[in-house]
Amino acid sequence: MKQVTAFAPATVANVSCGFDILGFAIDELGDWVQVTQSDSGILRVVEIQGDGGKLPLEPEKNTCSVAIQAMLDEMGLRQGLDIHLFKGLPLGSGMGSSAASAAAALVAANEILGNPFEKKDLVPFAMEAERIACGAAHADNVAPSIMGGFVLIRGYDPLDVVKLPVPEGLYCTLVHPHLELKTADSRSVLRQQISLKESTVQSGNIAGLIAGLFQSDFELISRSLKDVIAEPSRALLIPGFYELRESIRSVGALGSGISGSGPTIFILSQGKEIALQAGEASKEVFKKIGLGVDVYVSEVNDRGAYIQTS
Amino acid sequence: MKQVTAFAPATVANVSCGFDILGFAIDELGDWVQVTQSDSGILRVVEIQGDGGKLPLEPEKNTCSVAIQAMLDEMGLRQGLDIHLFKGLPLGSGMGSSAASAAAALVAANEILGNPFEKKDLVPFAMEAERIACGAAHADNVAPSIMGGFVLIRGYDPLDVVKLPVPEGLYCTLVHPHLELKTADSRSVLRQQISLKESTVQSGNIAGLIAGLFQSDFELISRSLKDVIAEPSRALLIPGFYELRESIRSVGALGSGISGSGPTIFILSQGKEIALQAGEASKEVFKKIGLGVDVYVSEVNDRGAYIQTS
Repeated sequence: MKQVTAFAPATVANVSCGFDILGFAIDELGDWVQVTQSDSGILRVVEIQGDGGKLPLEPEKNTCSVAIQAMLDEMGLRQGLDIHLFKGLPLGSGMGSSAASAAAALVAANEILGNPFEKKDLVPFAMEAERIACGAAHADNVAPSIMGGFVLIRGYDPLDVVKLPVPEGLYCTLVHPHLELKTADSRSVLRQQISLKESTVQSGNIAGLIAGLFQSDFELISRSLKDVIAEPSRALLIPGFYELRESIRSVGALGSGISGSGPTIFILSQGKEIALQAGEASKEVFKKIGLGVDVYVSEVNDRGAYIQTS
Repeated sequence: MKQVTAFAPATVANVSCGFDILGFAIDELGDWVQVTQSDSGILRVVEIQGDGGKLPLEPEKNTCSVAIQAMLDEMGLRQGLDIHLFKGLPLGSGMGSSAASAAAALVAANEILGNPFEKKDLVPFAMEAERIACGAAHADNVAPSIMGGFVLIRGYDPLDVVKLPVPEGLYCTLVHPHLELKTADSRSVLRQQISLKESTVQSGNIAGLIAGLFQSDFELISRSLKDVIAEPSRALLIPGFYELRESIRSVGALGSGISGSGPTIFILSQGKEIALQAGEASKEVFKKIGLGVDVYVSEVNDRGAYIQTS
């Protein structure tokens, strides 16, 4: 019986001015999924580790099995598969936890089936898992988790996914404060009407960010990392958000923003040294507030999900 | 006494999803400005041809002299200069007529003064002319007219102008219907409040358009050429707008939009052949409506304004 283990990375969605349309992948931090062929004829989630018992084992509720089922349905295939999920990502942190599980499951299952799909074509199946996990079939976590790098979701009707280049030496610092922030709350504070002026400013910034990525223009990236639409409302839910912004700019980081719907904050920097300093500066900010934090530093991951070879 | 003539091209601003932030330059069609040193110690607009007598000769009202004066002020310089303006562009058509005059004047005067400014640094001076001509110091016509190619205005505070690449073989068809459309009317129909959803869709499209320009991905450019914010209101002021869109898509053009605040419509195509066919298709549309049109076909101009050498 074939057995494959895949890794899929954490991701940052809602990248500042790229609210709802831009995500990128992180190195090292992520989930592992082992998929094993079986004679059962059905999908089974056999084991989950690292979730504190919070994730469902029922195949119709688990993101791994939902994603794989969507793939099998597309192929018109019945295939017995046993799934083992090893969570490396904290739940509900804004680092694309549910997306990483689905991405790893799909890449593993795709390998077992002889890779009938290219990576990009796995995205719609992972979106079905997001529909179960988050209530909306959004693609801005699953696409970068599968494909790596920066991924633009140009539109959903039809799905239009565009992989963007990653400037060499672009590092991300993820700062995860120990506070609970419900996605529903993050969503409810969003204004549903915005001014024409704000929309134009946002357009200018996302256009600048995309150009900065293509030109490896770190200054332009830095100038463009401004979200005038979601962040002003959501930042209020994260104590220390603006102090952190001041602090990381003073050590030379390019900019910061809310990862997904928070509470994790992402910081982009040119080079590992500054990314590490930004992490230290962030710890100081949250220490003053009296909140614990986890800090991760990694290059932006251009590879995405991959098969683990032992 | 030194004498220099410069040419500056027509431009398309408000490029679809790039409403208020993106413009590009056209080949051949444009204005010429001849600048001659004089002992007068003042700026004089000596002659204007091709405007039907509509443009002001007063130096404080003419876009050529206003732009040059802003440059001289920046240098703290008094310099007598005589200006001859030869309009190749129709006024009030949405092709950046006032911008082309200012751009040509600046490039000529800059040459006479020994090129103290790089092209990009001329943009703020031309914006002063736009303030006089249009009531707003916008940069999305003057920047591409001076610099050529596609130019992104990332933001105004401070001014942040980003030149973007032009895919080889990208052609523009300009269709100028013989109807008068007041800029004030075009502006008044704009909604000042838009939905979060619309803003997100617009962001996705402008991000896709920028990526398409960098990747020379004509399909992506085509999919991204959608404006959900300004166009739905403004198109109603231009009879035949949607019929033209259908018609040019059927001959294989990439897409169309309103040039500036209209009534001119721009069409982008891959290759001259399709651009010409799109022009013919457009003529048919307006013939049915009973409106005359002028049609111009040219490559997107990557050079911008230049000195005429005889």
